[in-house]
Amino acid sequence: MSPNRVYLDHNATTATRPAAIAAMAETLAVVGNPSSAHAEGRAKRRLVEEARAKVAALVGADPACLTFTSGGTEASNLALTPSIRDPRDPRPVTRLAVSAVEHPAVAAGARFPKDAVETIPVDGRGVVDLKAVEAAFARHAAERPGERMILALMLANNETGVVQPVAEAAALAKRHGGLVHVDAVQAAGKIPVDMAALGCDFLALAAHKFGGPAGVGALVRAHEGLHVEQPVVRGGGQEKGWRGGTENVAAIVGAGIAAAEALRDLDAFASLALLRDRLEAELARLGDLVVFGAGAERLPNTSCFAMQGVAAQVAMMALDLGGVAVSTGSACSSGKTKASPVLDAMGVAHDLSVGMVRVSFGWSSRAADCDRFLAVWSEIARRNQASANAA
Amino acid sequence: MSPNRVYLDHNATTATRPAAIAAMAETLAVVGNPSSAHAEGRAKRRLVEEARAKVAALVGADPACLTFTSGGTEASNLALTPSIRDPRDPRPVTRLAVSAVEHPAVAAGARFPKDAVETIPVDGRGVVDLKAVEAAFARHAAERPGERMILALMLANNETGVVQPVAEAAALAKRHGGLVHVDAVQAAGKIPVDMAALGCDFLALAAHKFGGPAGVGALVRAHEGLHVEQPVVRGGGQEKGWRGGTENVAAIVGAGIAAAEALRDLDAFASLALLRDRLEAELARLGDLVVFGAGAERLPNTSCFAMQGVAAQVAMMALDLGGVAVSTGSACSSGKTKASPVLDAMGVAHDLSVGMVRVSFGWSSRAADCDRFLAVWSEIARRNQASANAA
Repeated sequence: MSPNRVYLDHNATTATRPAAIAAMAETLAVVGNPSSAHAEGRAKRRLVEEARAKVAALVGADPACLTFTSGGTEASNLALTPSIRDPRDPRPVTRLAVSAVEHPAVAAGARFPKDAVETIPVDGRGVVDLKAVEAAFARHAAERPGERMILALMLANNETGVVQPVAEAAALAKRHGGLVHVDAVQAAGKIPVDMAALGCDFLALAAHKFGGPAGVGALVRAHEGLHVEQPVVRGGGQEKGWRGGTENVAAIVGAGIAAAEALRDLDAFASLALLRDRLEAELARLGDLVVFGAGAERLPNTSCFAMQGVAAQVAMMALDLGGVAVSTGSACSSGKTKASPVLDAMGVAHDLSVGMVRVSFGWSSRAADCDRFLAVWSEIARRNQASANAA
Repeated sequence: MSPNRVYLDHNATTATRPAAIAAMAETLAVVGNPSSAHAEGRAKRRLVEEARAKVAALVGADPACLTFTSGGTEASNLALTPSIRDPRDPRPVTRLAVSAVEHPAVAAGARFPKDAVETIPVDGRGVVDLKAVEAAFARHAAERPGERMILALMLANNETGVVQPVAEAAALAKRHGGLVHVDAVQAAGKIPVDMAALGCDFLALAAHKFGGPAGVGALVRAHEGLHVEQPVVRGGGQEKGWRGGTENVAAIVGAGIAAAEALRDLDAFASLALLRDRLEAELARLGDLVVFGAGAERLPNTSCFAMQGVAAQVAMMALDLGGVAVSTGSACSSGKTKASPVLDAMGVAHDLSVGMVRVSFGWSSRAADCDRFLAVWSEIARRNQASANAA
């Protein structure tokens, strides 16, 4: 990759922290399995537990309630199952309510049968409809008093950056005996996240979104009593029985370091909003701009927009040739030409949603990156204007 | 860890190849997500596909039939499900037969219901009973002609190193319409493995057993038609829909390099049998020795034994204090004082099996490691003899 490239797709995968890379290389160079009783094994075990404390601290959680997984998708899959056991309310968990803008890791219902999943709408800004949350849980409580429903609501949307009113939604679900899972994969390391303040039962994290490596994530639970009878990966009983398989110690170490640095740098991350706001102000000067989720609280680093007449695929290719990497949808569904399900759920018209471009800054982004994007986009807008005039 | 330590627990986790570590660090330092369409994404995609070819080559498989997973446990979980779909024989797969010495990733039945799992016995050497395999599949074919059973048989046992007659067992299972899954986690990189010669439908690998990092494995299938309707991790459709979640590119790259080096070094690995044989010969001089699986074909690097009167936990601690790391069971079940289920299945008496010590050499092992082990063990044997004489 040319060093002159400008990468503005940090919501897909952000730059790995150099300290995390160094620690991972060091960890990989020393042999040992944390389940082994000898000195090599015990040393690896200590590394895992140190990292567990650091990742838990990023979301204000008890390290004893954190299970390392292979990533955010597995973490959400782990929580979202009818095999949840909650000693504080032993009724079976038979139903799942997901917001209409959830990530694919959650949207398809994870381990719930398809017919046990219902969708909660969002408004035009992409914010979950709290009245619909309350109505769904009230109806469920009335119709199936012997059963429970779990709400899956992301803290921040990967495409628009819209931050959901999770604490409010969780309170409504809980008022009717519900459980709450929060996909905090896009939010953690970008805005302050506090498990207790959110009032959720489960929370999912992925390290490659906050400066750690891919291949490691975590499921955090609110208290040690919460249990899942069926693990996703079943084997040798690692992670207190929550996940079979040899622990990915190097990646876990990297996640711990990245979590600590992301927590330390939250203020600096917040200031990326200055870049984002400048970008949107300049874009508005260059054409007829719609910023998706503009009226809602958003992550400081994310801008999701369309410019009248500019096709996203064409813009992305022009940007790529110009040395700038952006996304035209979540990385998980790009390559497909269909419009983003997130924008569909927000009621965005197809001719606008096919123009969706996502710019996402990261901890390593600089003001010059924004300038470079704007320089290339100016040319795209100029050509677009010229072809509109010619038509 | 002191550089003077001698690590002889390579079946738990072996030393990561330095070239793999270097390539991983390099990969982590470059940002990008292989599902993204921009140059950074395409570069990561190329790395994944290059690694896929290398790992497939280790077992003589078609790269198009290889799915990367988070490890060997997940790979076996992925294959062992009633949701297998085989267009060459569309009958449902409703039953699982596992050998009595399988790894925990398989032994508990993975994703089959407990009552759909039956166990095939092994003989005193730990070799699967081929007559029992044939009888189980013949009985199943007679009793449930509209359904299929899958055999799960490991290629090499993690504790004893015993190599199973997989090709023979697979032929017997297939004669009666069965399917075959092979856990090749301990075998790959230690002995030649050829998917077609084994005659299996699925085969599981884990990189940290052949010099790659933990956190990555693979499920290989015999042909592209074979399918699993329910992935283990459900999300954005990565790995052609076989596994959701952002690909762990750095670990995949490390796995590819390790696979290529392990394939290149198979002859050198075979010569570890010289160290292993010398170790066993010397041990036999020091006390009353039983080598488990001695009468069977074994991995060249593994010795699993007990010496009359020597408690394994005591020996392991004495060795650990003496700077030598060995195992007293599979790492996945160590820390528990119960006897190894593998030795139980072989009919080893409890007073002998609690003395089980496993020495496993790796690609980085040297003759001096064997000498060092023998020096410390001599002292253990001497003390054991002294206390026996005193009693």
